[in-house]
Amino acid sequence: MVNVRRIKFPIFVIICQVVFLVLFGTLVEYDDSAKPNNQDKAHPAAGGIVARMYPMFQDVHVMIFVGFGFLMTYLKRYGYSAVGVNLLIGAFVLQWAIIIRGLLAEHGSKFTISVSDMLTADFAAATVLISFGAVLGKTGPIQLLVMAIIEVVLSQVNEHIGLEMLHVADVGESMFIHAFGAYFGLAVARVLYNDKSDDNPGESTVYHSDLLSMIGTVFLWLYWPSFNGGGVTGDEQHRAVINTYLSLTACTLVTFVVSALIDEKGKFDMVHIQNATLSGGVAVGTAAHMPLNPWGAMLLGAISAVITTIGFKYITPCLASKIKLHDTCGVHNLHGLPGILSAVAGAVMAALSSKEEWGTSLYEIFPEMAASNSTGSVMPGSDRSATVQGGYQMLALVITIAFAIVGGIITGFIMKLPIWDSPEGEKFFDDNHNWNVAEEGFPGLPKSKYESGKSNDDTQINLMSDETKLS
Amino acid sequence: MVNVRRIKFPIFVIICQVVFLVLFGTLVEYDDSAKPNNQDKAHPAAGGIVARMYPMFQDVHVMIFVGFGFLMTYLKRYGYSAVGVNLLIGAFVLQWAIIIRGLLAEHGSKFTISVSDMLTADFAAATVLISFGAVLGKTGPIQLLVMAIIEVVLSQVNEHIGLEMLHVADVGESMFIHAFGAYFGLAVARVLYNDKSDDNPGESTVYHSDLLSMIGTVFLWLYWPSFNGGGVTGDEQHRAVINTYLSLTACTLVTFVVSALIDEKGKFDMVHIQNATLSGGVAVGTAAHMPLNPWGAMLLGAISAVITTIGFKYITPCLASKIKLHDTCGVHNLHGLPGILSAVAGAVMAALSSKEEWGTSLYEIFPEMAASNSTGSVMPGSDRSATVQGGYQMLALVITIAFAIVGGIITGFIMKLPIWDSPEGEKFFDDNHNWNVAEEGFPGLPKSKYESGKSNDDTQINLMSDETKLS
Amino acid sequence: MVNVRRIKFPIFVIICQVVFLVLFGTLVEYDDSAKPNNQDKAHPAAGGIVARMYPMFQDVHVMIFVGFGFLMTYLKRYGYSAVGVNLLIGAFVLQWAIIIRGLLAEHGSKFTISVSDMLTADFAAATVLISFGAVLGKTGPIQLLVMAIIEVVLSQVNEHIGLEMLHVADVGESMFIHAFGAYFGLAVARVLYNDKSDDNPGESTVYHSDLLSMIGTVFLWLYWPSFNGGGVTGDEQHRAVINTYLSLTACTLVTFVVSALIDEKGKFDMVHIQNATLSGGVAVGTAAHMPLNPWGAMLLGAISAVITTIGFKYITPCLASKIKLHDTCGVHNLHGLPGILSAVAGAVMAALSSKEEWGTSLYEIFPEMAASNSTGSVMPGSDRSATVQGGYQMLALVITIAFAIVGGIITGFIMKLPIWDSPEGEKFFDDNHNWNVAEEGFPGLPKSKYESGKSNDDTQINLMSDETKLS
Repeated sequence: MVNVRRIKFPIFVIICQVVFLVLFGTLVEYDDSAKPNNQDKAHPAAGGIVARMYPMFQDVHVMIFVGFGFLMTYLKRYGYSAVGVNLLIGAFVLQWAIIIRGLLAEHGSKFTISVSDMLTADFAAATVLISFGAVLGKTGPIQLLVMAIIEVVLSQVNEHIGLEMLHVADVGESMFIHAFGAYFGLAVARVLYNDKSDDNPGESTVYHSDLLSMIGTVFLWLYWPSFNGGGVTGDEQHRAVINTYLSLTACTLVTFVVSALIDEKGKFDMVHIQNATLSGGVAVGTAAHMPLNPWGAMLLGAISAVITTIGFKYITPCLASKIKLHDTCGVHNLHGLPGILSAVAGAVMAALSSKEEWGTSLYEIFPEMAASNSTGSVMPGSDRSATVQGGYQMLALVITIAFAIVGGIITGFIMKLPIWDSPEGEKFFDDNHNWNVAEEGFPGLPKSKYESGKSNDDTQINLMSDETKLS
Repeated sequence: MVNVRRIKFPIFVIICQVVFLVLFGTLVEYDDSAKPNNQDKAHPAAGGIVARMYPMFQDVHVMIFVGFGFLMTYLKRYGYSAVGVNLLIGAFVLQWAIIIRGLLAEHGSKFTISVSDMLTADFAAATVLISFGAVLGKTGPIQLLVMAIIEVVLSQVNEHIGLEMLHVADVGESMFIHAFGAYFGLAVARVLYNDKSDDNPGESTVYHSDLLSMIGTVFLWLYWPSFNGGGVTGDEQHRAVINTYLSLTACTLVTFVVSALIDEKGKFDMVHIQNATLSGGVAVGTAAHMPLNPWGAMLLGAISAVITTIGFKYITPCLASKIKLHDTCGVHNLHGLPGILSAVAGAVMAALSSKEEWGTSLYEIFPEMAASNSTGSVMPGSDRSATVQGGYQMLALVITIAFAIVGGIITGFIMKLPIWDSPEGEKFFDDNHNWNVAEEGFPGLPKSKYESGKSNDDTQINLMSDETKLS
Repeated sequence: MVNVRRIKFPIFVIICQVVFLVLFGTLVEYDDSAKPNNQDKAHPAAGGIVARMYPMFQDVHVMIFVGFGFLMTYLKRYGYSAVGVNLLIGAFVLQWAIIIRGLLAEHGSKFTISVSDMLTADFAAATVLISFGAVLGKTGPIQLLVMAIIEVVLSQVNEHIGLEMLHVADVGESMFIHAFGAYFGLAVARVLYNDKSDDNPGESTVYHSDLLSMIGTVFLWLYWPSFNGGGVTGDEQHRAVINTYLSLTACTLVTFVVSALIDEKGKFDMVHIQNATLSGGVAVGTAAHMPLNPWGAMLLGAISAVITTIGFKYITPCLASKIKLHDTCGVHNLHGLPGILSAVAGAVMAALSSKEEWGTSLYEIFPEMAASNSTGSVMPGSDRSATVQGGYQMLALVITIAFAIVGGIITGFIMKLPIWDSPEGEKFFDDNHNWNVAEEGFPGLPKSKYESGKSNDDTQINLMSDETKLS
């Protein structure tokens, strides 16, 4: 008898990989600076694109695969899936996003790949991995890749609308990545809702899994300035880096404050520290390259810390009980709400911008504001005032959230089709469903007792099934 | 009834954060290269300050938050505090140090922030986190922030005296960061001494916490060349990087040698490997940019490995029993003694320096030696001989240690005031005092037994309180 | 009575360190760009060698010490040795490789050290650490350093033959590092074979050790583009980075596919995810800087994933049972077979290369093909056709494998001499043999029970020695 489960995933993924290979073969070629006989080499120190972008690309790369991957290892029995499936989805999206982004760019029949495209593909992976957080532990790998296929297309189209048609600024992509990924994932989670996810004992942490998760937190925290500044250059990049760094410092302090304040015994809660300390990076994302001023960046970080921590304490449980929306990692708090905050901050900054204070940076950040102010080449339609630019920024936010929610609902129903690999409720939050799981971390116990779980297929490891054995 | 504990920390920290915000608002603006309309952008590849400093800044950033944070997770039940409170203190000091350093620089009424200031703020955080190591597990978060507030001021004033008034060289800041942080922390630890820290069962490790701690060790080990070389350029930077790399290799071998030699069964000890392997980075810090020669750097690393390992084995227990100085992480061994070694090496190098061998690097490293040797612009007071420069180097060390010890004693008494959040002895080395702690890492055990600890407030988790349950 | 064990390791290592110090003192000086008075400083932004090479050097540095170190922590009771002895061997090889490489370079009586040499020393460490993987858990530290001493010489001579005499291309050193390290290690493992390594209960994982191991996997995965691209510049570097990134993405997807396909229940296996996802980095190594095209790089990654995963499932057990070759980490699968694949791919690319398609990159990649095609300075013997260059590439592979196997056999017999510190079979895969090991990660249990193991010398920690205590 053929085991359907055994072949469904391999067939699905190998088809995707073959399609990707064919598409890369027909569509993708090296960027000029990576083609043979490129004269870039004449000035190795001056460096060109690799010297300029590669270090920050690598920082972002670490964020996607170490940061997101380990952040999600906090669940006591879902660590393999957190870091392993994170790697799977990430590697899948890197390929798919390069294709979709290339097709959207529409430069002739072929498109090119460079370090810059490696960076933006990583950004695309972030979007999907944020959505992954909302459904962590409640979805199978095929379902997640189905989600990735659709979400990459929708998120890149949304970003294309925002950047190329609305001409809005979103340097750290707090709208196009964080808000989109969060609301898309929340919509999917709502559609997939199963009451087995409520009060599931698998959805808890153990001491060392909480510490492992901090590896993810800290690397995200450290490299976030590269996330927000990696896509720009010059003074915009320098500001983006400074603003993000400062926002995160204030965000961290306020997270500890609020975490202690809302605990009845005044203790800190790991889930807040793991997550809310990062929200300052999101909150400052849209406007990171604008002259927010140091205090402005810090203020945004502080506000987001309050929103995110309060969100984890009160909003997430409320969503679960009131509207049957179970958000495993609380992406609404870390990516959704701070993404909105960031978009609004960007719109306000745009509305307040002026040539007097921003100098030529105004046109670099908002190219559509150039024509009406500068002399020379007037482009049609490019006579935006600051207020209009602010309005466009808000419009992009509204479109993003609408796109994400509608797209997420549709995607959720597709993911719910019984043809994929949806785990049943009792297998939620359990690596054993998809992995051959090692024994628990307690080698000193007699073997016969604790290794029995290894041979069981879909049951949780039950170290000592009978409590009387201990008493 | 209002829970004082619940509001004391939030009030303290939020006041600090508001003060920081106001000070940033009134005092701090972007560096010219981060201001709008900066022409830096014209040459993105040539890069300016971000391209030049950002990669090494990020290496140091990882050292401070991953390196120090995880290095201290070795205690079996204090990992949340190690990595979490490390993040809190770090984020706090980054803000405070930018303010204090800006005020000390005294360039007009305002001062600026750039990637360079982000790096030096990280250095300032290192100083406080070294002191944190001396009192790890025995202090509350408010106490630690009180310590940070005072220590940042004193350490920056001390550095200012050394660099701007005595004109000494200390490129990796082995004096101004490592020795200062260590002796300051030790003085605090002495004042706070409580005999409950002796033979406390909480002050021990478990297998996986020792491995987690190695994450910190290895990242510190790897990025230390960036710590010592991040603040200089050109051949000085290249030498600093090479010397640190080589020093650490020799240091590592000798650490394993001494660790095995002083163990009665010839086995290695994790505490030595976690710590003493790093002492070569400290030992070479002051003189890393000087022409030590490869063998000289290695010799310094080898010597420091001996000192540090011996220190952990013999000096730390002796300090505890003889002078009631309990140094949790052994910062005296890793930062104090190698800091002194480094300072002495720097003084010797200065005394042996000459224009013939060092070329113009002599004046770049010791600007005060320039006037008497070079032609042209003679500055008053700038006629130091090599021997005099060596003397100044030693003077800076003496001032640093005196400053640290006196400052630490005073700070210790302030921290001892009963108005803060000092833990009582039985709550030492226990995350449960300040955190909502997850269950232990052993999910297979019956829930009712091992989760009971979660609801207890200040008691240690007592998984099976009655030994008879097992027998 | 003198404890021989206690002094053997210290004496051995300190002699090596003293020899290294003397050799560094007599042979090694700073590179010109690191010498005092270097004018490099005049153009700090343009950067010179540090700005150009240091970020990628640090990526590789992380791979060697975090990547290899943590990848090997998967064994439940061998984590200290994995990450600790990895650090020891790494630090040892960095010094020794600088000396051996300098002597092979033969530029006068002295040789120099720069960031470039730091990078190549790290590469040399990779070779030895790959071999370490084959004998992990079955060798003592002295044995491993003996292996390192010999292997560094042989591998560097082999590389010298390949690069300087045969003039072959191997930019990511898939032949000279991965294939060499793997077959050398396998030959050593065969000679050291002890049937106690079969079905040894110590050779298993626990849940959290498998997760810790993923830290190594992910950092290796992320920074592999720097490994393959760190040694070249310009368009070659850009291609190497792109090709490696793409190869790894396809490799990851196919690894998940094959892992599920060959499991009878269709589940993923951690050992595949930890290892085979990386084989794409090896597979693309030799030809990473050649114009493979994006799809070509991905195809190589996909093929290597199949080979490596199949290898772990079928070849490794077969080698153990059929030819008494126990390969602890399966380096044959991750480094051996993909190394051969990569070398063949490089040879095919060379045979297909042409001036028309590759432009001047042809001569940069294969300098020996320059004379017969370009005008001007014809060098004797430098009239290789593409086919001949392909033949040389294959010749280098054959020589590498032969050198590795013969060298490994001889080294194995030297390591087998009873004068070193070979562990007996019952002490395999057990940190307790060489380390003072902390208690297990379960602090809640009554102390008297689980800490008793700490004082036992060479027995495994036996938490509850009598199973009846539980029943």
